[in-house]
Amino acid sequence: MAREAETHADIPFGPEDTPWQKTFSGLRVVGGRPYGTPPSSDPREAYIAVPEVPHHKVQLPPTGLDANQYTEAEALFRSHIDTQTRNFAGYQVTSALDYEGRLGHYLNRHLNNVGDPYQSGSYTLNSKVLERAVLDYFASLWHAKWPHDPKDPESYWGYVLTMGSSEGNLYGLWNARDYLSGRPLRADPRQPGRETAAGQTPRGAGAHAFHPVAFFSEDTHYSLTKAVRALDIDTFHALGSTRYPDDNPLAPGTPWPRQVPSTEHGAIDVEQLAVLVRFFASRGHPILVSLNHGSTFKGAYDDVEAVARTVRGICAQYGLDSRRVRGESGGPEERSGFWVHVDGALGAGYTPYLEMARDVGMVQQAPPAFDFRLPDVHSLTMSGHKWMGTPWACGVFMTRTGLQMAPPGASEYIGAADTTFAGSRNGFSALLMWDYLARHSYDDLVRLAARCDDLAAYTHARLLALQEQLGRDLWVARSPQSLTVRFRQPRADIVRRYSLSGETVHADGAARAYVHLYAMRHLTRQRVDELIGELRQPGAFPRSP
Amino acid sequence: MAREAETHADIPFGPEDTPWQKTFSGLRVVGGRPYGTPPSSDPREAYIAVPEVPHHKVQLPPTGLDANQYTEAEALFRSHIDTQTRNFAGYQVTSALDYEGRLGHYLNRHLNNVGDPYQSGSYTLNSKVLERAVLDYFASLWHAKWPHDPKDPESYWGYVLTMGSSEGNLYGLWNARDYLSGRPLRADPRQPGRETAAGQTPRGAGAHAFHPVAFFSEDTHYSLTKAVRALDIDTFHALGSTRYPDDNPLAPGTPWPRQVPSTEHGAIDVEQLAVLVRFFASRGHPILVSLNHGSTFKGAYDDVEAVARTVRGICAQYGLDSRRVRGESGGPEERSGFWVHVDGALGAGYTPYLEMARDVGMVQQAPPAFDFRLPDVHSLTMSGHKWMGTPWACGVFMTRTGLQMAPPGASEYIGAADTTFAGSRNGFSALLMWDYLARHSYDDLVRLAARCDDLAAYTHARLLALQEQLGRDLWVARSPQSLTVRFRQPRADIVRRYSLSGETVHADGAARAYVHLYAMRHLTRQRVDELIGELRQPGAFPRSP
Repeated sequence: MAREAETHADIPFGPEDTPWQKTFSGLRVVGGRPYGTPPSSDPREAYIAVPEVPHHKVQLPPTGLDANQYTEAEALFRSHIDTQTRNFAGYQVTSALDYEGRLGHYLNRHLNNVGDPYQSGSYTLNSKVLERAVLDYFASLWHAKWPHDPKDPESYWGYVLTMGSSEGNLYGLWNARDYLSGRPLRADPRQPGRETAAGQTPRGAGAHAFHPVAFFSEDTHYSLTKAVRALDIDTFHALGSTRYPDDNPLAPGTPWPRQVPSTEHGAIDVEQLAVLVRFFASRGHPILVSLNHGSTFKGAYDDVEAVARTVRGICAQYGLDSRRVRGESGGPEERSGFWVHVDGALGAGYTPYLEMARDVGMVQQAPPAFDFRLPDVHSLTMSGHKWMGTPWACGVFMTRTGLQMAPPGASEYIGAADTTFAGSRNGFSALLMWDYLARHSYDDLVRLAARCDDLAAYTHARLLALQEQLGRDLWVARSPQSLTVRFRQPRADIVRRYSLSGETVHADGAARAYVHLYAMRHLTRQRVDELIGELRQPGAFPRSP
Repeated sequence: MAREAETHADIPFGPEDTPWQKTFSGLRVVGGRPYGTPPSSDPREAYIAVPEVPHHKVQLPPTGLDANQYTEAEALFRSHIDTQTRNFAGYQVTSALDYEGRLGHYLNRHLNNVGDPYQSGSYTLNSKVLERAVLDYFASLWHAKWPHDPKDPESYWGYVLTMGSSEGNLYGLWNARDYLSGRPLRADPRQPGRETAAGQTPRGAGAHAFHPVAFFSEDTHYSLTKAVRALDIDTFHALGSTRYPDDNPLAPGTPWPRQVPSTEHGAIDVEQLAVLVRFFASRGHPILVSLNHGSTFKGAYDDVEAVARTVRGICAQYGLDSRRVRGESGGPEERSGFWVHVDGALGAGYTPYLEMARDVGMVQQAPPAFDFRLPDVHSLTMSGHKWMGTPWACGVFMTRTGLQMAPPGASEYIGAADTTFAGSRNGFSALLMWDYLARHSYDDLVRLAARCDDLAAYTHARLLALQEQLGRDLWVARSPQSLTVRFRQPRADIVRRYSLSGETVHADGAARAYVHLYAMRHLTRQRVDELIGELRQPGAFPRSP
């Protein structure tokens, strides 16, 4: 090819710094001839360096790595990850795992839970029988009606996620969009999965009757911003800024806020939400609210019950609490004109046990109810890697069977309805969650929950004491019942050592660089004390971090 | 709660058939009190049975399972999966895996490649350094410009997928939608991730200039139907049926086809595609084409080069080959008015080696080029679990850096741009692919490719011989260079034993129930012979299967 002349076939490549084109010379079958494009520049210089794992040691030449090269590269990576795991403290992810002994075998098997969890086709290499047990476990824990029954609209439906709660948020918002837009539901006698061209307005009362508007707080995970963009759902900010630029009801004449304001602790401000919801409900728009049960940075719990009551009340005034939707060819059906989704990535896996701990007096308080006890919770998601702890992200999505959107198109090939977000689904994830729940009783989990709550309180107290001792405002704060404590961002090497995640928080009119620490079950008082020791040293909090 | 009275707290639950409410009695910390909702009916009767793994053996009581119960349940599941793995022949998934010994350790670690692969933040428990090596490997193999360089629009950009090619198709189509709709690109100086309200038409020539229309063939994987629905992209069928119901250009007056017709072998019919594309391009719509490099059921290869040339030619006639897009606030930029995405789930991982095998005379033919050698290929996806083989679905998405859409919103929290589809990404997947590529040279893979090609030919010949012998049309067929052979669906127990996937194919005016077999590397002649032996028995092909 002509462009090879412009490139750099002699750039050193791989663990032995071999000129790229010479990396082919050991290949006998293909005759030593280069195939593919040579590098245009040296990747080692182009890419960010991980000092512990030099890039050339892990580069993949066409010969592969020999046994020694493989061993060295894998050992470098393993040692780096093991070190980082020891100090990991900044994310709501549990890193103390012990699946290898029991489940290593399944690294030699392929498990794919493609399609609906309650149907099995010819794709028999799946763990759906375990998945159904995991889903029933959470349905009971979250006070849903179970087992799943396709004929009972009040029974739950759910599935084990492959991507974690980001996928649960995406799928919940997609279902909400189609539900509120008057598209066919799974239980609908109409043709399932019928395509409708965008812009075609279904029949209904008012021009905006099938044009939902999304609301979530400024403390909401960034995946929600992505979900509404992928799904092309209008947020109140987008629609407000475009159609009603001067009518921001929270402060007329000023720009619309991008998200719903939160309280200082990070929970959604229900009064301001109400003002925003009323603005759009009064114009006939169905309402989509996504709430946090444990926000990412502050660990705050939105008051799901108060929001659901408020939204229902406002919607009732404008005929959006319950309405008859007429489809293209079918008869009318009853649907709510609002949807409440709960992102319980960490919280939904943790606070039920904290609630049990409170009920027996082990802890004083637990967050407010967030689950299917509340009749207006439409969908809920939780991550498996956060509270339980798994080697990769996973989780659970749950809704009520009667709310399910019609699955798109046919999926005869896999012999199961295509009701989930992914096509192929990670079957090992259901096995991991099953394993964890089989080996931990409610007693175990209640004790762990109380211990983590206590550790968060301990960390909070130690940081407050440090703040006092240093005589400097470290902005130390813990939202009620949160497992995270936030504080002023320290020096970069401390941030990296403990994997402390950072966020800029706007408070008192200033942008503040915060980090936080999560009291997950792998964290110990000893590790917290070590961190406090480092933070006590001079220079730990530079003036401009 | 009131509704508990209506439910069935005594329904037997768990491996010992304990009445549900009594499953709490062993709990000391929480005092033996039930928590959550009792079952409304017996899940063992509600759910589909897996005979080898009785549901009550894997149910998860609040006490968890004791050591014996756990051992029995896990052994039942393991034995079932091991048996099914031995005979697995019906899907394009490799089931001969050996990762346990080397990588079992990582089941005790959490690896999350959250955010852009080329940026690292404080989330240090990632395998991005290996991911970049894997991506460079495929960039070279697929003739892209590498390494990735954010300043070079011709260099590749990509990431390792968490859900497999379904995610790659979703992400490719999402990027295509935003690109063709005139939304901001990543390289755009405008505010990245700026939200735009749906329905707001960007400025441009013609009312449809930013209203893309999607085309894919009837042999396309069902995940494409899902992707266009999630992303709210109009297909030519949806838009044609709605706006131009009587104008189907393939057969005026008859209903629009749902997908683009294919040839008998399953490749997209380029002439009919051209007619459909012209219909919409002439009306000013940008064109989004998704092609198959190895279709799911027939294993057919669309002629990517011919399609790209044809689409570019038609688009050029209507000013859609290259056009200036003006954003909300920024200057004009040059973009094509069409996008070609290639779903190379199996093929993109396999045919490069078949091409090398052809070049040295080991096989006679290889499929046509599908990769970045073709300047009009915009994006490409491949699965890791298909050709390479991994314990769960994974894969690679790749595009050109200059085509990347702007990532949505901020993601300071993770310290890396939110350029991928998932939030959390499975970091073990990149490790698996790295491991496989480190241990297999091009020589190894070329030999394997030639062997699989030969095994598919062998299977085809054996089935043709059986057909001859039985004196009955078994509809045996193999598309050129495909690894799959399709034939008439046999008896249900044979289908299940070999996990043969089925599809109804319309041919000669009749609906035919087919199955197929995939000659993946774990399949042997011996296993094929066994299957043939079973198919030869009387009653193997019932009249109504």
